[in-house]
Amino acid sequence: MTTFAEKLTRKVEVLQNPSLLGLDPNLSYIPGHLLDQAGQAGKQGADQVAAAFLAFNKAILQELQDLIGVVKFQSACYEQYGPAGLNCLRESIGYAKSLGYLTILDAKRNDIGSTASAYARASLAASPLPEDQSSSQTYAALDADAVTLNAYLGIDGIKPFLDACQALGKGIFILVRTSNPSAGDLQDLDLADGRKVYEAMADLVAQWGEDLDAGQKFSSVGAVVGATWPDQARHLRARMPRQIFLIPGYGAQGASAHDALAGLSEGRGGIVNASRSLMLAWQKEGTQGQDFAQATRRAALKMREDLLSAL
Amino acid sequence: MTTFAEKLTRKVEVLQNPSLLGLDPNLSYIPGHLLDQAGQAGKQGADQVAAAFLAFNKAILQELQDLIGVVKFQSACYEQYGPAGLNCLRESIGYAKSLGYLTILDAKRNDIGSTASAYARASLAASPLPEDQSSSQTYAALDADAVTLNAYLGIDGIKPFLDACQALGKGIFILVRTSNPSAGDLQDLDLADGRKVYEAMADLVAQWGEDLDAGQKFSSVGAVVGATWPDQARHLRARMPRQIFLIPGYGAQGASAHDALAGLSEGRGGIVNASRSLMLAWQKEGTQGQDFAQATRRAALKMREDLLSAL
Repeated sequence: MTTFAEKLTRKVEVLQNPSLLGLDPNLSYIPGHLLDQAGQAGKQGADQVAAAFLAFNKAILQELQDLIGVVKFQSACYEQYGPAGLNCLRESIGYAKSLGYLTILDAKRNDIGSTASAYARASLAASPLPEDQSSSQTYAALDADAVTLNAYLGIDGIKPFLDACQALGKGIFILVRTSNPSAGDLQDLDLADGRKVYEAMADLVAQWGEDLDAGQKFSSVGAVVGATWPDQARHLRARMPRQIFLIPGYGAQGASAHDALAGLSEGRGGIVNASRSLMLAWQKEGTQGQDFAQATRRAALKMREDLLSAL
Repeated sequence: MTTFAEKLTRKVEVLQNPSLLGLDPNLSYIPGHLLDQAGQAGKQGADQVAAAFLAFNKAILQELQDLIGVVKFQSACYEQYGPAGLNCLRESIGYAKSLGYLTILDAKRNDIGSTASAYARASLAASPLPEDQSSSQTYAALDADAVTLNAYLGIDGIKPFLDACQALGKGIFILVRTSNPSAGDLQDLDLADGRKVYEAMADLVAQWGEDLDAGQKFSSVGAVVGATWPDQARHLRARMPRQIFLIPGYGAQGASAHDALAGLSEGRGGIVNASRSLMLAWQKEGTQGQDFAQATRRAALKMREDLLSAL
């Protein structure tokens, strides 16, 4: 079976683009005409917002399919609109996959035992259905290609996801060093053995990657490493030679292309996320948003150029 | 406004019961007749499971309303059945609140900036709707009274939830020391200043509680402290004198009542979760589950007795 790491590496190489499209919609990001259309179709409340989110996502996914190969969906943005929002997330992931994108659910899930297994089923795999069911015996809620995780609870919370990597060719990205101002509250504390907390996390992640797929060039156990800390990213590459870095912080969060790519391994092994700078391109252009998807494409072309010239 | 901590303390005192009912259903926990009823009502697949989960939850909530005051819903169990599962979660929380329960969403959410805000809206508060909407201008996806969080990302990820505590009388429980075997992979590492990682987390949690509601007896910033480590719980009480402990690990995970209550403060300031030992009481009694809710009640009465005699 092709591993997630192989699929991702190939996508980036074929399209010559390490960009990761983030579809993390909020109501204020959506052009008015999409909300109007959903309203005219009889949708109200959360259903209206979810329908507009879906139309927004689909148009952007269609417009960028020859340009970007990997798309990330921020679960919170959809969860806030309840069952309708989750249905939009489910349909968005399915649509992205139908166009050939690799999909990452950005959910930062974490739990233990049977609950971690339920999260693995919810995000990457499938859940059992009653046995007398004549149709399919399992239900896949989201069926993303990969999911982001938080490993504060140790390997117990990661194991069910590793099983999905092994059995289904899926991937995970574990938070190591995040891009936010207060990331250091816990992550930067000094350990007695000379490491920082985030370095200990990096060592765990590297080890879990070895346990899963040692011998492969890149592991399907990836790491989230914020672009706002390029020195740390370079340093973390040495600790995690086989991890693919999911790199947030480029664009709206202030990191340059050079910063964002600091942790790559000979120009490989990383994908750089941009969410707001792509989704909100139409607002930056000062338009009413009729051509929002083309505006996103223009911003995505500029981003690719920016990243490739820094490589 | 009554704070979450006050509401919770009152519930525990009025009912003389520090038990926390965990409604964390999986398909194998559900008596066959509930699945049959959902099937006979025309539900299939995930809809059938979600309808059976809802009937299961409602019957137990009804049966225990004079006995237990706080209920916890494990998000993963519902998410695995997609939009139908999330709808079941939403209706279960609403039904529990209508019966007077305090509700905790066990979701261990974590993110930063605008995404943390979206999670706070999704779990505790409400999200905006299009402005021309004639009906309510916001949508509350779950509207739980409290939510569990993971603070690996520092205060940035916690702040929007503190705002909901302040403005809406809601509460949070932050993972400090979890109950699973590999909790120590990261949490037990020694820091250079002599603390363990989980002690540093405890100090952050205590500080955030001070920032929110110093002067109150108990804080609405609570802590998750696993019952399987009673020595640590006692020790953590000294570091977090004002935190309410959400204590997992009793029953199915092997901790005794004595272990579970080790971290309380003069018999107060903690709630002890039981999920499987209550939900699966009908299976332990060896029945077909026709009287599952009464079986749960019998197990809950025994649990209360066990806890009160250990106090």
